Amino acid sequence: MTTFPDSTDFAPAVDLARRLLDALALGTQADPGVTRVAYGEGECLAFQIVAEAGSAFGAEVRHDPAGNMFVTIPGRVRGRHVLIGSHMDSVPHGGNFDGAAGVILGIALQSMLVARGIVPVHDLTVVALRAEESCWFPHSYIGSRTALGKLAPEALDRVRRSDTGMSLAAHMAALGFVPDAVRAGRTLLSREEIVAYIEPHIEQTSGLLNAGLPVGIVTGIRGSFRYRNMRCIGEYAHSGATPRADRRDAALAAGRLICAMDDYWQQAQESGADLTVTFGQVSTHPDRHSFSKVAGEVDLCIDVRSQDEAALHAAEMALMANIRSIEAQTGARFELGERTGSTPALMSPPLMALLREGCAHYGIPTQDMPSGAGHDAATFAEVGIPTAMIFIRNAHGSHNPDEMMEIDDLGRAIEVVAFAIAHIGQMHE
Amino acid sequence: MTTFPDSTDFAPAVDLARRLLDALALGTQADPGVTRVAYGEGECLAFQIVAEAGSAFGAEVRHDPAGNMFVTIPGRVRGRHVLIGSHMDSVPHGGNFDGAAGVILGIALQSMLVARGIVPVHDLTVVALRAEESCWFPHSYIGSRTALGKLAPEALDRVRRSDTGMSLAAHMAALGFVPDAVRAGRTLLSREEIVAYIEPHIEQTSGLLNAGLPVGIVTGIRGSFRYRNMRCIGEYAHSGATPRADRRDAALAAGRLICAMDDYWQQAQESGADLTVTFGQVSTHPDRHSFSKVAGEVDLCIDVRSQDEAALHAAEMALMANIRSIEAQTGARFELGERTGSTPALMSPPLMALLREGCAHYGIPTQDMPSGAGHDAATFAEVGIPTAMIFIRNAHGSHNPDEMMEIDDLGRAIEVVAFAIAHIGQMHE
Repeated sequence: MTTFPDSTDFAPAVDLARRLLDALALGTQADPGVTRVAYGEGECLAFQIVAEAGSAFGAEVRHDPAGNMFVTIPGRVRGRHVLIGSHMDSVPHGGNFDGAAGVILGIALQSMLVARGIVPVHDLTVVALRAEESCWFPHSYIGSRTALGKLAPEALDRVRRSDTGMSLAAHMAALGFVPDAVRAGRTLLSREEIVAYIEPHIEQTSGLLNAGLPVGIVTGIRGSFRYRNMRCIGEYAHSGATPRADRRDAALAAGRLICAMDDYWQQAQESGADLTVTFGQVSTHPDRHSFSKVAGEVDLCIDVRSQDEAALHAAEMALMANIRSIEAQTGARFELGERTGSTPALMSPPLMALLREGCAHYGIPTQDMPSGAGHDAATFAEVGIPTAMIFIRNAHGSHNPDEMMEIDDLGRAIEVVAFAIAHIGQMHE
Repeated sequence: MTTFPDSTDFAPAVDLARRLLDALALGTQADPGVTRVAYGEGECLAFQIVAEAGSAFGAEVRHDPAGNMFVTIPGRVRGRHVLIGSHMDSVPHGGNFDGAAGVILGIALQSMLVARGIVPVHDLTVVALRAEESCWFPHSYIGSRTALGKLAPEALDRVRRSDTGMSLAAHMAALGFVPDAVRAGRTLLSREEIVAYIEPHIEQTSGLLNAGLPVGIVTGIRGSFRYRNMRCIGEYAHSGATPRADRRDAALAAGRLICAMDDYWQQAQESGADLTVTFGQVSTHPDRHSFSKVAGEVDLCIDVRSQDEAALHAAEMALMANIRSIEAQTGARFELGERTGSTPALMSPPLMALLREGCAHYGIPTQDMPSGAGHDAATFAEVGIPTAMIFIRNAHGSHNPDEMMEIDDLGRAIEVVAFAIAHIGQMHE
């Protein structure tokens, strides 16, 4: 790659990305928004759209035993891969760009290289990962963990999809993939065959929008702990006839816990800690509750995230202390259920530097920023693969139908990633 | 009635009550507990069991245009009725005794009078009322209001059943009753034909149990206000990536409101006010929520009750003030939805005195007490009919599968009501 493409050379790639994203939105619409269930219909359609787009310009399409898809254009030296990728599933009634934009960016970039006859140094492989949105399978990073042979084998049978109740292994097998090979840690690419992993992703809050920046360079990814199946058990009782002292009100106890943990978050933030605290699901029992009954049970979940392991630990201790205190105060009791979580991950400084240089080369204003959300990039970083993420400006957050990325901002990100890939190549020549 | 029956004379009546209650529990079981939907299958079966029991000893069975049922044994003077009654519907997965015990007490009492050849002064009519549990139709006292021609005509089309979405009029018509006659205010008995209304009912909290008393004499019935379809609207957003300041968290706002109104209740009670405050239903959206999304919407309801109109008004003002304050604090907003409610009602002092004398006559310890829950007796009192209620000891509260009335306590209540009815007769001879 001697003469580097200028911005106008990317127009056909940006146009391809637009068409692929439109096809994806149309094919997976679930008014409002889109729904692409992990190992389900919408995710499979997304994989098919990407496979057909890659095949159209001659890329090689392969799957690993878990069903992750690898779309490769050959480099001058075969067998060592620079990966660009992300996941293709979405939350229920989510937006079109979370995950998919990163994969489609890679396909668009490959199309540009092929169209202009540019052969990269290493094989350039777009990886479409499965099952990142853990609302489907309550387990972090299933796609990247299986791609790297790092999924705990017992998770295949233990982890079940929230809508079907079927195991991860059963869902893999139902699509023709090979859970026994996944159990044995088999992958398509070995750790040593992967030179770098770059994950382009929409920003999931309004930091770039507010700062007027089209892209941002990620420094690290927040870890988490979650109790997704907490229950609060009280006692059903007549709403008008049961005195205050005789109640064990599960709705009140749940409300007290939400407020106590929000108060904790406020104090922690004022002390400078990096933290988010969210109760995303809170529900009395749809068949047993009534406006005229004190609530006897509430299902709820908590998701706590931080870049700092110590802050996560302190928040978990505060959760336990608040539960004990609210149980004593209300007479209701909490059942925590299974704990899941992930550890914080740092991005590769040399790759971050290349992305920054790409921005400078194309005159794109940018900033460094942490990722509040978890991403598959954390798994690649964890096994020691040089890993980077570029965030793309996005309005209205993500995990909702209103997320809005401008296609021109995706175009700027393609330029930056193209620059970085060319120079990873030069670094390794 | 010259020689008054003694306690042992009531044994066959108590036995009949036991058999009828067992049949009712068996026929309407809905593990856990029983479900007798208003104008639905379980309520109709309950009416049938009562009608067959009355017919077996020769009582006359009639229905009014709304489907309330009147089971009459003739008095010496025909055409003026002493009513004993209650409702036959239950909350979903409720207990067997709430409502039904009062109707069955009346049938058992009639059976005793017939068996012993005792002819009361007035016609003695057991009235089985429809649709008292307003979880089904969100409207207070439908059965007693239609029985007295006092249901607001527009309610017939406006009020819809929570499970079917069909109107009250449609449900009446589906069972062969006559909503147009109800709309015109037609009843089976005129206000002037009703001498008195006595409603026996299980106590819905543990006051009698704790005091060691089999029955209690009700002094008055709490009124209420309810917002059964409140919503809290926030904004769905990523749980890990959305900073505190950018959130509009509907689950947090709902939790804050529950806690604020519980704090208000505590203060009001410490100031001596009669009050209950209950949020019986609180739910994020089952299809749109996720553990990894800030909640964008919560459905909730509030039920506030008091014997004192001023206390109800003050609590409603506090609700509005708390909503304004929490909206400002969280950025979420509340939609109140329709307001329903009822006014407090006082029981008849002469009837209360007769019930007390009945207790004294049979050596039954008792006490006066308010009713925290609403009852159809409030409607009869409101139109000026002398009205009384007797509460029967009950464990575990009501509106839940675990309510537990001892049949011997029902037997004591039959004695007391028999005494009162005999002396209402003497008062009017």
